[in-house]
Amino acid sequence: MQTVITAKNNDKIKAAVRLRDSARARREEGLFFLEGARLCADAASNTAVMRLFYTEKAAEKYENEILFLQEKAEDICLVSEDISLKLSDTFSPQGIFCVCKTIDKKHYIDKIYGSAKLIALENIQDPANLGAIARTAEALGIEGAVLCGCCDIYNPKAQRAAMGSLLRLPILNTENMPEALKNFEGRGYITLVSTPNEKAVDITQCNLGEKTICVIGNEGKGVTEETSRAAMQLVRVPMKGRAESLNASMAAAIIMWELMR
Amino acid sequence: MQTVITAKNNDKIKAAVRLRDSARARREEGLFFLEGARLCADAASNTAVMRLFYTEKAAEKYENEILFLQEKAEDICLVSEDISLKLSDTFSPQGIFCVCKTIDKKHYIDKIYGSAKLIALENIQDPANLGAIARTAEALGIEGAVLCGCCDIYNPKAQRAAMGSLLRLPILNTENMPEALKNFEGRGYITLVSTPNEKAVDITQCNLGEKTICVIGNEGKGVTEETSRAAMQLVRVPMKGRAESLNASMAAAIIMWELMR
Repeated sequence: MQTVITAKNNDKIKAAVRLRDSARARREEGLFFLEGARLCADAASNTAVMRLFYTEKAAEKYENEILFLQEKAEDICLVSEDISLKLSDTFSPQGIFCVCKTIDKKHYIDKIYGSAKLIALENIQDPANLGAIARTAEALGIEGAVLCGCCDIYNPKAQRAAMGSLLRLPILNTENMPEALKNFEGRGYITLVSTPNEKAVDITQCNLGEKTICVIGNEGKGVTEETSRAAMQLVRVPMKGRAESLNASMAAAIIMWELMR
Repeated sequence: MQTVITAKNNDKIKAAVRLRDSARARREEGLFFLEGARLCADAASNTAVMRLFYTEKAAEKYENEILFLQEKAEDICLVSEDISLKLSDTFSPQGIFCVCKTIDKKHYIDKIYGSAKLIALENIQDPANLGAIARTAEALGIEGAVLCGCCDIYNPKAQRAAMGSLLRLPILNTENMPEALKNFEGRGYITLVSTPNEKAVDITQCNLGEKTICVIGNEGKGVTEETSRAAMQLVRVPMKGRAESLNASMAAAIIMWELMR
């Protein structure tokens, strides 16, 4: 079924914008909003597409992606260029948008506990950092992520930076990171916390077990006291230059690289 | 000397906006435009501040930075909130802006050739990537960068991502990267090119000499054929997950980490 939408106050458009802008709406409805040919097509391989919006121009330029998404989507809406601009939060929209079901995390639990190398993220607030870390984690072969107090993984900026990896990487949410670390320790994991503190062990010198989980903390404040105390060891990326200069996603990349090296 | 500017068509404002938006204007005038308390104060330690623009609100909120910049700046302009919005390319400007002299690279040449570990960047087009790589390079202790065909280091987005490192890190510009590599080889450097090509040597397995320079290529296309041929060895970051997922600045971070490890 395909409808044509040209009115900005159309209910489907308003609902999509709400999902784009509000983490609460996403949580309450179990849906999220995505933009871009590649991202939408990727998502369709990983979750249910409830609605596709596309422009005529997009149908020409991204023919394969649109055909694929038309097959997958439950509802299909052709929209005007004006509507496309309203839906987009980029300057030059591709004219392809989807509303998708958020991923049911239940089937991730076994995968997480069966993983050798995990990353844990505590209070990461910048969606672009969250996405970049997930993307690098997947590239390096980290098998899953444990999140506590982070920004919403379905934030459009996080999804864009993640290039689909936030829909593929097994993710476990916890409200209590210290408890989660103790749980992992009980399951035979070495639990680490990354910190710039000079008293921490150099990541190249520390004993990485077969099963390891390492916590990366908030961009400005680092890992909380409680979580630091709950971990078996504090580790750091030794810095020869200006320590303040290594941002959260770069530090995470180096830590994950060392876990997998 | 302090003037008060409230008219948007003021010549000083127009000149500043031109420097913000045009690489050509920056090159022709030998000046660049910076925004933000921390960035401007940092810049004042590394180059001459020709003009300071600030708002009354900024003078209250960033008292120390403004006092420091007032001492350093040749010309000081108090501007209205409206002008601040016009000067800024962020959503919530801090109300502090500077016009600075671009750095005379001549005194960098000796530093570059005296360095043990260098990064070379070929055709990096995203200013945020360029800035992030420079920031990580400085943090890890890489001693300088050789640039060929990259976006302008004085682009405001590059400066913001670099957090001042593009004004501190010794930088050499070249129009011929293959020739530059041969020059470095003649000076006793091991010359490397980073590539996702599976035939390349794993970066953890390759022989890194005391003096090493490694080229990182364009975000989409990688390093050019000519430059790849000119290097002594092709190296890669071994990938256990989705290779396409490692972006240019993350790959650069891991390469630089291995150079310094």
